[in-house]
Amino acid sequence: MTAITETANRKTRGRPRVFDRDDALDKALMLFWAHGYEGTSLSDLVSATGAKAPTLYAEFENKEGLFRAAMQRYIETFSAQRNAVLNDDGMDVKAAIEAYFRATAACFTECDKPAGCFFICTSSALSSESQEVAQMLSRQHHAQESALQAFLDTRQARGELPACANSATLARYLACMLQGMSVRAREGANREELDQIVDTQMAIWPALAGYCELSAA
Amino acid sequence: MTAITETANRKTRGRPRVFDRDDALDKALMLFWAHGYEGTSLSDLVSATGAKAPTLYAEFENKEGLFRAAMQRYIETFSAQRNAVLNDDGMDVKAAIEAYFRATAACFTECDKPAGCFFICTSSALSSESQEVAQMLSRQHHAQESALQAFLDTRQARGELPACANSATLARYLACMLQGMSVRAREGANREELDQIVDTQMAIWPALAGYCELSAA
Repeated sequence: MTAITETANRKTRGRPRVFDRDDALDKALMLFWAHGYEGTSLSDLVSATGAKAPTLYAEFENKEGLFRAAMQRYIETFSAQRNAVLNDDGMDVKAAIEAYFRATAACFTECDKPAGCFFICTSSALSSESQEVAQMLSRQHHAQESALQAFLDTRQARGELPACANSATLARYLACMLQGMSVRAREGANREELDQIVDTQMAIWPALAGYCELSAA
Repeated sequence: MTAITETANRKTRGRPRVFDRDDALDKALMLFWAHGYEGTSLSDLVSATGAKAPTLYAEFENKEGLFRAAMQRYIETFSAQRNAVLNDDGMDVKAAIEAYFRATAACFTECDKPAGCFFICTSSALSSESQEVAQMLSRQHHAQESALQAFLDTRQARGELPACANSATLARYLACMLQGMSVRAREGANREELDQIVDTQMAIWPALAGYCELSAA
C-alpha cells in the first residue's frame, strides 16, 4: 500500500484514459490468482490493468479493496457457473455431483487462466500480516462446502440419498477431494488426470452416498 | 540472494559462534513452511537461525541451497515417519492405509509447527522466477504418490487387493485426498476434522480397494 505513490507514474504514459472496471478486475484477478495476494504488487497491478495508480486507488481504496473486488468477480464468473449445476433439477444426485466435479476439473485446468482454485492458490502463502485477507478467503472457501451440503440435504429430502446418510460428513469429504484436485492442477495435472480421479470417485459413489455412520450399508 | 551482504551484520551480535547445522535447518524449515520460499528472506533466516549470513552462505551457498537442505530435513523427519507405516508388514492393507492417513492428519495439525504439508504450503505461491524450486517440490510431492503405489503393488502381489484393481489410479485418488487434507489443515481444520474425513474414506475402503475399471465390483 505504501508503494502507491512511487509506482503511479510508471508505464502508464499514453494509455487510454477511459477506465473499464470489469476489464481491470479481470486482469487483477489473473495476477492475484497466479502470484497470490502478497506476490502481486501495486506496480504489477498498474502495469497489467493499464490504469493509473490514483484511478485504482479512487475506485478500490487500496490493494485489499482491489483484491476483494477481484474475488467477487471470480465468484460471479467461475463459482456461479459451477454452482448452477447443483441447482439443475433435471439431473439426479449422482449425475449432478459428477457434472459439478467435471466442471471443476475443467475450470482448474483451462489454459487461458492460472491452474487450480483461486481461493486455494491465493491463500496458501499469506503471512500473518494478511489475516483479514486469509479470513475472507477461508469464508468463501467454506461457502463451497455449504453449497454442497445444501444440495445433498435437498436431494436427501427427496429420497435420493438414504435417510441415515450424513450430508455434512459427505460434503466435507467431497470438498476435500476438490481441494486436492486444485493442488494437483497447480502442480501441473491436466484435465485428463483430474477426470480420472472423478472417474474413481463416481465408481465408488454408491458406497459413498449409501454410507451411514450408525449402520454401514 | 543479492541481499546477503546487507543483512550480514544485523541482529547477530553476541550470538554464540558455534554453528549447529541441524538446529539451523530446523529453524529454516519452519520459516519456509510458514511463509513459503519467496516469502522468506535471507534476513529472516539470519534472524531465526542466529547464524551470520556468511556462515549460511558458506554452508548452503544461497537461499535455494538452504531451502534444498531444509526440504531434505523435512523428508527425513516427517515424510520418513509416515512412510514407515507403509512398510510395516504386521498390518493388512486397510490397516496400513488407515494408519498412514491418521499419521498424516496428525502431522498436518500438530501445534508446534505450521499446518499442512511442507511441499504444498511452499509451492503454492511460487512465481515464475522460482521454476527450479517448483520442480524440486513437485518431484518430492510425486514421490509420495509413488510410495503409495509401490505399497499397493506389493499388497496386490500378496493377494490383499483384487488382481484387477489399478494401483496407479487408486494411489492417485488417495494422494489427491491427502493433498486436500493439507489445504484444509492450512485453513484451520483440526485433527478431529481431518480424522472424520479419514473415517469416511475407510468406511468406503472396500469399494475403493475392490474397484476394477473393466468390471466394477
